[in-house]
Amino acid sequence: MHTVAKLTSILGSRLPIIQAPMAGVQDSRLAAAVSNAGGLGSLPAAMLDTATLASELAALRAQTEAFNVNFFCHAPPERDSVREQQWLKALQGYYQEFDVAPPDAAGPGRNPFSAEIAEVLEANPPAVVSFHFGLPDESLLVRVQATGAAVISSATTVAEARWLEARGVSAIIAQGTEAGGHRGMFLDSDLNSQLGTFALLPQIVQAVGVPVIAAGGIADAAGVTAAMQLGASGVQVGTSFLLCEETATSSLHRAVLADVNGDTALTNVFSGRPARGICNRIMRELGPMSPLAPAFPLAGNALAPLRRAAEAIGSSDFTPLWSGQNRTGCAAIPAAEMLRRLAAGLPD
Amino acid sequence: MHTVAKLTSILGSRLPIIQAPMAGVQDSRLAAAVSNAGGLGSLPAAMLDTATLASELAALRAQTEAFNVNFFCHAPPERDSVREQQWLKALQGYYQEFDVAPPDAAGPGRNPFSAEIAEVLEANPPAVVSFHFGLPDESLLVRVQATGAAVISSATTVAEARWLEARGVSAIIAQGTEAGGHRGMFLDSDLNSQLGTFALLPQIVQAVGVPVIAAGGIADAAGVTAAMQLGASGVQVGTSFLLCEETATSSLHRAVLADVNGDTALTNVFSGRPARGICNRIMRELGPMSPLAPAFPLAGNALAPLRRAAEAIGSSDFTPLWSGQNRTGCAAIPAAEMLRRLAAGLPD
Repeated sequence: MHTVAKLTSILGSRLPIIQAPMAGVQDSRLAAAVSNAGGLGSLPAAMLDTATLASELAALRAQTEAFNVNFFCHAPPERDSVREQQWLKALQGYYQEFDVAPPDAAGPGRNPFSAEIAEVLEANPPAVVSFHFGLPDESLLVRVQATGAAVISSATTVAEARWLEARGVSAIIAQGTEAGGHRGMFLDSDLNSQLGTFALLPQIVQAVGVPVIAAGGIADAAGVTAAMQLGASGVQVGTSFLLCEETATSSLHRAVLADVNGDTALTNVFSGRPARGICNRIMRELGPMSPLAPAFPLAGNALAPLRRAAEAIGSSDFTPLWSGQNRTGCAAIPAAEMLRRLAAGLPD
Repeated sequence: MHTVAKLTSILGSRLPIIQAPMAGVQDSRLAAAVSNAGGLGSLPAAMLDTATLASELAALRAQTEAFNVNFFCHAPPERDSVREQQWLKALQGYYQEFDVAPPDAAGPGRNPFSAEIAEVLEANPPAVVSFHFGLPDESLLVRVQATGAAVISSATTVAEARWLEARGVSAIIAQGTEAGGHRGMFLDSDLNSQLGTFALLPQIVQAVGVPVIAAGGIADAAGVTAAMQLGASGVQVGTSFLLCEETATSSLHRAVLADVNGDTALTNVFSGRPARGICNRIMRELGPMSPLAPAFPLAGNALAPLRRAAEAIGSSDFTPLWSGQNRTGCAAIPAAEMLRRLAAGLPD
């Protein structure tokens, strides 16, 4: 079990359990609750401007010690006005149905990691910085590492794990296909390359020397035990926290999560990249994977007026309802209690 | 652990480990080796005529006691000559490249369970009969149950597990998406409904009262332990046996299996239904999922002359290279030794 001790020493937390960063449904409140209970809370920063990031970091710092801040590090896409117009055209019938104006263009919704963000981190460095979609450019990566933060990132294939290790990450999250939210895939865009946790985790553990954090389908103590059996040094859990008291999960999202019969799918209609959410009308009618969706993150903006209009009448037909494939652990309890439930599965 | 004892009592084997039936790569020899070592060996009967089935059953009976015989129980498809001609047309370039004649029509390749087969079983009943793609008609199912054989079948969703339990199966195989070969899915044809073992297994365990057998991504002792942790009463393992001495796995197939970097995908080009195999030329060029493939099992016949011609020159470009997503357990050893390796992961 020395790899577990190695991981907790890297993360700066008592327990090798990371609360997965979940942009759109949580802020520093959930992260602080998890970190204060001994896990590693995460602040999802992909959708924050630098001012909000700075204030969230300060808020977290005031409440707890070690925490993780998560960023997306995609390359901003080339704009493609033809494709963006096609996307708006595909949504035309919905704009009419809801009597809303389409946005002028399918604009960006999420900012990649940048020099401005690095500056905010330098002023107030967190214990851990996690990246999704690979790693930022070498020059930015070096700046983050120089703050003393441990850098971790997600791999969805063995090749991605090797790529991350070669670039000096401190630990690797093995993200099995059961996981909710965005797939971290960055070397391959073919969904056929994506593996279930049972297959991905042991292969990454065999392939790399750094500690491996299991993610995808881990919902409770038994899941934690099983992941550790397969060679994980720790786990990252998102979905089970979605109903916790400290989240900002909307009531519409909560209602859908509570229905265990709702299937999930990987869809690109909300952002342009595959992400797992519970199937709803827009996913069924345009996807779940649509060849028309503009490159990440351009697809999302076009849905915004529809989402607003639908939510106003109590409909989640156009809302991203992020969820993993295993919702059996979800419970409307304090995050600290959820962490205790999960930690019961850790080896002694 | 009383559910484990319940399962072994149903299966008639000492260990709760089933060697997955793998049509095309094994016969009674592998099944006998596994059963004699304390597991439950399986004879894949989907591609056997009744005479061969009878002789294989007799061969098994002479070598061992308890074993499983596996059948497909799809409804024979309506022939659709337009679609079959389109499929042959899509393959036209390959027929020319190899200078082979296309078959007259995309004929059937696998027979569903039938009254004739039930008669063979009645004459020589095995301990266990497993079905893929649901269950046969009530009248046939009753005949199989009347032989005293325990009937089991695969579920790929919670709904399928409930459906099987309601029809009286003795145990349910939870087939996670990591598994090699044909997906057992029968209530839903949407691949988005398919879950990883980490998510599927605990949900099926929660949903049904009969013992649940985990399948998909389980490659070694650690995998067995993890599956039991997630609530399984036993496991079904296929891929790890593929290189064993008692299989009939071709040298072409073996070579590809030994390369751990080959990605798998779910493809319908070999049969018309999604099945997981290692990606090769025909999968990449026509699929992996092709809307042109005729209904199961009609797609396969059209590939037969191409497969023959390609294999004759040492190419597996048109060969179904069935494999799960986790090949880390594969080893060219006796099946009894593989079974011992797996059994080391069972709880005491």
